[in-house]
Amino acid sequence: MKIRYGGDDNPEQLMTLDPAWLPAEAFRAIGARRVLVCAEDGPVVDTVLAEVARACARYGGQVHRDPSFDGAQLMLVLTGSGSLPSAAGDVAAEVSSGEPLGEEGYALARPGGTTVVLADGPVGLLYGLFHVARLGTAAFDGWHPLEARRPAKPRRMLDHWDNVDVHPVMGQVERGYAGGSIFWRAGQPRDLARVREYGRLLAAAGVNAISVNNVNVHATEARLLTDRLHQVAAIAAVLRPYGIRVHLSVSFASPMVLGGLPTADPLDASVRQWWADAVSAVYAAIPDFGGFVVKADSEGQPGPFGYGRTHADGANALAAALAPFGGVVHWRAFVYNHHQDWRDRSTDRARAAHDHFAPLDGQFADNVILQVKYGPVDFQAREAVSPVIGAMASTAVAVELQVTQEYTGQQRHVCYLGPLWSWVLGFPFSRRTVAEVAAELVAVSNVGDDPFWTGHPLAQANLYAFGRLAWDPSLDPVAVLDEWISLTFAPCPSPLRAALHEIMDSSWSVYESYTAPLGVGFMVDPGSHYGPSVDGYEYSRWGTYHFADRDGVGVDRTRASGTGFTGQFPPPWRDVYESPDSCPDELLLFFHHVPYTHVLRSGLSVIQHIYDTHFDGVARVVQMRRRWAEVADFVGQARHARVAELLDEQVRSATEWRDHINTYFYRKSGIPDARGRRIYA
Amino acid sequence: MKIRYGGDDNPEQLMTLDPAWLPAEAFRAIGARRVLVCAEDGPVVDTVLAEVARACARYGGQVHRDPSFDGAQLMLVLTGSGSLPSAAGDVAAEVSSGEPLGEEGYALARPGGTTVVLADGPVGLLYGLFHVARLGTAAFDGWHPLEARRPAKPRRMLDHWDNVDVHPVMGQVERGYAGGSIFWRAGQPRDLARVREYGRLLAAAGVNAISVNNVNVHATEARLLTDRLHQVAAIAAVLRPYGIRVHLSVSFASPMVLGGLPTADPLDASVRQWWADAVSAVYAAIPDFGGFVVKADSEGQPGPFGYGRTHADGANALAAALAPFGGVVHWRAFVYNHHQDWRDRSTDRARAAHDHFAPLDGQFADNVILQVKYGPVDFQAREAVSPVIGAMASTAVAVELQVTQEYTGQQRHVCYLGPLWSWVLGFPFSRRTVAEVAAELVAVSNVGDDPFWTGHPLAQANLYAFGRLAWDPSLDPVAVLDEWISLTFAPCPSPLRAALHEIMDSSWSVYESYTAPLGVGFMVDPGSHYGPSVDGYEYSRWGTYHFADRDGVGVDRTRASGTGFTGQFPPPWRDVYESPDSCPDELLLFFHHVPYTHVLRSGLSVIQHIYDTHFDGVARVVQMRRRWAEVADFVGQARHARVAELLDEQVRSATEWRDHINTYFYRKSGIPDARGRRIYA
Repeated sequence: MKIRYGGDDNPEQLMTLDPAWLPAEAFRAIGARRVLVCAEDGPVVDTVLAEVARACARYGGQVHRDPSFDGAQLMLVLTGSGSLPSAAGDVAAEVSSGEPLGEEGYALARPGGTTVVLADGPVGLLYGLFHVARLGTAAFDGWHPLEARRPAKPRRMLDHWDNVDVHPVMGQVERGYAGGSIFWRAGQPRDLARVREYGRLLAAAGVNAISVNNVNVHATEARLLTDRLHQVAAIAAVLRPYGIRVHLSVSFASPMVLGGLPTADPLDASVRQWWADAVSAVYAAIPDFGGFVVKADSEGQPGPFGYGRTHADGANALAAALAPFGGVVHWRAFVYNHHQDWRDRSTDRARAAHDHFAPLDGQFADNVILQVKYGPVDFQAREAVSPVIGAMASTAVAVELQVTQEYTGQQRHVCYLGPLWSWVLGFPFSRRTVAEVAAELVAVSNVGDDPFWTGHPLAQANLYAFGRLAWDPSLDPVAVLDEWISLTFAPCPSPLRAALHEIMDSSWSVYESYTAPLGVGFMVDPGSHYGPSVDGYEYSRWGTYHFADRDGVGVDRTRASGTGFTGQFPPPWRDVYESPDSCPDELLLFFHHVPYTHVLRSGLSVIQHIYDTHFDGVARVVQMRRRWAEVADFVGQARHARVAELLDEQVRSATEWRDHINTYFYRKSGIPDARGRRIYA
Repeated sequence: MKIRYGGDDNPEQLMTLDPAWLPAEAFRAIGARRVLVCAEDGPVVDTVLAEVARACARYGGQVHRDPSFDGAQLMLVLTGSGSLPSAAGDVAAEVSSGEPLGEEGYALARPGGTTVVLADGPVGLLYGLFHVARLGTAAFDGWHPLEARRPAKPRRMLDHWDNVDVHPVMGQVERGYAGGSIFWRAGQPRDLARVREYGRLLAAAGVNAISVNNVNVHATEARLLTDRLHQVAAIAAVLRPYGIRVHLSVSFASPMVLGGLPTADPLDASVRQWWADAVSAVYAAIPDFGGFVVKADSEGQPGPFGYGRTHADGANALAAALAPFGGVVHWRAFVYNHHQDWRDRSTDRARAAHDHFAPLDGQFADNVILQVKYGPVDFQAREAVSPVIGAMASTAVAVELQVTQEYTGQQRHVCYLGPLWSWVLGFPFSRRTVAEVAAELVAVSNVGDDPFWTGHPLAQANLYAFGRLAWDPSLDPVAVLDEWISLTFAPCPSPLRAALHEIMDSSWSVYESYTAPLGVGFMVDPGSHYGPSVDGYEYSRWGTYHFADRDGVGVDRTRASGTGFTGQFPPPWRDVYESPDSCPDELLLFFHHVPYTHVLRSGLSVIQHIYDTHFDGVARVVQMRRRWAEVADFVGQARHARVAELLDEQVRSATEWRDHINTYFYRKSGIPDARGRRIYA
């Protein structure tokens, strides 16, 4: 399989850029109306006006700016922008009696024959416009009661693991599967036309913050903070009209690497002054700069441990510099020993973040956000929810998701992650769900310079769903997918909609079924993380083991006989997970080492479950491919061909997973498949 | 472990270059004598004169050039250089009655009180001088009968897998473990002072040909044949005074890549003309150019298969261009399917070279040399001898050895390979040994820009031993090692000599003992090939499997039930290997899949043999380290420290091998160690 991801800086390439969930057709309902925009000009209002004008030019509608215009079918009104049209005034009155909309909220109503969108801030108006696009003609039918919408989280953020220089091992984008970076190419910033389009897509999904460089900060990337700051400012200028703020990943060692100081000790006065000066210069260039992302003492990155300081000391030093300007520090909790000895059964990577950070709860400054991966290991298709999320009552926690499909098929496999994220967000710690506990959601982007943005055209849905779930974690992920389908394939013929749901709704569980079983995780090829290698990490320093022997498989993380990880959970989970009888089957091997003959709730033994799910998973991928072939007439040729080619690869890869896993466990267990299917001895 | 391999182009670095087996002390016996050199000046004779002059300047001897000088204690005489001194005349008369010495042979005698070295060609004289250095004071004691020495093979060649550009994955030297390349650095040729020293060392070991670039020919390297030819010529000029010819690895696709032709079809007239023209230009620049090395249709390199031609067609096309100038083609037989499906048990990488090349015997031009790796897989510490070597009665075959320790500890482990090579060279096909069948010996060099040349100072012995065994395959490898010790550590104190023999003599079998057992091979980390990864290649496309399951391990290569590889051997080996009863135990798992309970000739089961050898191997490495510590006073500080540091790493790595292998097989077999030692479950 050789996918060409494009990647030329040729401006004509923008012509071939896939419009993703904002095709012209998605604005037909708006563009065919008389639209009144009541708002003073400004960067974001200009975006609203340009969107409306473009749609009207295409579909025969009209744009009006005079508040006294009487025939509007759609009003987009910013409160505080002078006298309001009467329909808007009624809505405003009703809104003002309730909770404030805030800078990003909006209200929508259809009191008479006029659809009214009202917002207190320009970004809210933009979000309201995109909401009308999502509603389509439904926004203009009959009577709508007032609905006020506000984001559940003030920040919905994407991290880009993009390198400025091409990294000799990790390339232009670390764990990127969609070509090059949209920001950088071989050491230099790129033309930002594509970034502008990206900002538009993100705004329509509800994302309002982006970190523009890899959390592993190499030499060139470190300098984005100082002599390359103008390059960051240029990106910020392009994203500002879409309500998106720019953040920067920085090296904890910056005061030494960039400042020439002899130390980066966070309690050293000269270090703190260096950070203060650096931050001051950043805000002079980018007044709405968001803040820093820091991966410290993690997989070789420098951090406070080098100076005998805590991570609270480290994070707070940077936070102190940012606080006067309203900036924040995203401090990653991904700290563990990555030089583990596999012979040492007492060390457990799953325990590490909690061991490091739970004791620090309450010690972080207000503008520090502890960024915690959703699981305690590393973005596996299935793992327990990180107990750190429930252990930081006095700390702002950002839950980190991974839109880029590092461990979930690398945008060659269809794997709609909405259901995984919904499961995480709905996971209850005591009486509060993860969604309630989390101060915000952050995710690693899956976007590159591929004309389809995400390599796999259907992987766009993950990006969209992240934005929507970050805005409102209570949304049904299948309904979000349906939104994405409606916009992307507008107007979507029902056979195509049915096929897409059949292919995508359960694609995460299909992916899980043919890869690592029952939550055991990490059976991927070391390095690439694509394809099976059951023992690839089994004797490695990375702390990712399954301990399969001739009798059984799984990691004993109990208090009774294992690493004690279960004890990091509050009740009831500490007890639910402690016993294989109460542990959910899908996490059985994450928490327990059991014999292959252990019987699951399904009535199947573990070994038969492995065989069955792996045969079934491949059959379901073959069925996906068949369904996609059937809808060729409803999809553009290039998009259909790209997906078809990737489905071929998915069938191949899933088959490899099936055979590798089945053979591995057959060779170990000696137990044949009860249904007599072919397992290669 | 962080070894610094040096690598600066700083000319002062030559000052710190280790003299290896040519320290000044090795020339003490010569340098203290009155030496008469009777030979007309020329590049190689100048080398002889310079060596003698340097030694005499240091140790108080004298150099004389007048044949009538009467008081010589050592005469170095080139026949045909005018009237000979009388002592030399007597020797010459005796020599002339026997087989001619040839260009590289020499005779040594000590008729009276004068040691006489006689040669028919300048290179022979140089080799004779180095022979006197090896003999030391023994060359000047008593009476010596005439001994005439000639190389067993006309060409003793080293291949450098050096890249001109730094390859993004393989670096400056593919499979190099001694720093950078001595020829190239980051796209450019280096100062050649070090290459000159290298030539001197090689001449003293008997090597007379070098290929200066990697057999995987990338874009820049391809151009050494054309617009970078002057860089090759510069190397040739430096090596010529040491009797060493330069060869070049070329891309089979050169006519397309460099010539812009639409094809590289070896039967195409324009292609043949292109090669003729290219070769003509090469000889205009380098009149004594050796020829080409070609890796075709191998691991992604282009070759004749792309045009529906045979490898004979391909090799002969290049040979035709070289023949008028006396050049040769080294055509590698390392052709196999490197996209194998592990599920397909009928494909066997060990079979591939024989399947491809045996049918072509008799079809190769006279100046084609088929270059065959000594084993049918890939330079493993233990594998069968390649049956191709015995199957090409009408083809010149070069047996390829690997001095660079890709699979034998990467110059971090002590692994003296002389005994392995001697075993290969002595292996009898019908009535002729490999040494007798082989037209020549070739090896991949282990040299880089490290001040110790080879990373591990003791790995110098492998380079020396290759040259000596290529000159005379009948030499005892331990005696060769002793030669190397005598020269390198001259004058070597006996405690040091004893320690070195104890450490090195059996180091190959020690290495084997703690790595892959019983000839099964390839349990290394994929990619790096260093350290254990039992299943690293087990499900891969590379065709290197062990098929371990809960009952047994090994590859069935029999005719009766396996891949039929045994049938590629002539009698008696086809039958010896066919049965586990007659198959040598050290190759048991190379040829047979047996239960862990199979009993070896030692009386031990396979599983107990695995445990015992792995525990024992580590104990022996620990003992090596102890012995080395004891001789610190007899070795220079830098050399001692380097070896000590590497022995620490060897202990660590051997321990990792032991535990990984033992745990792997314990988890699979469930059979405990009969001696109750610790195996990590």
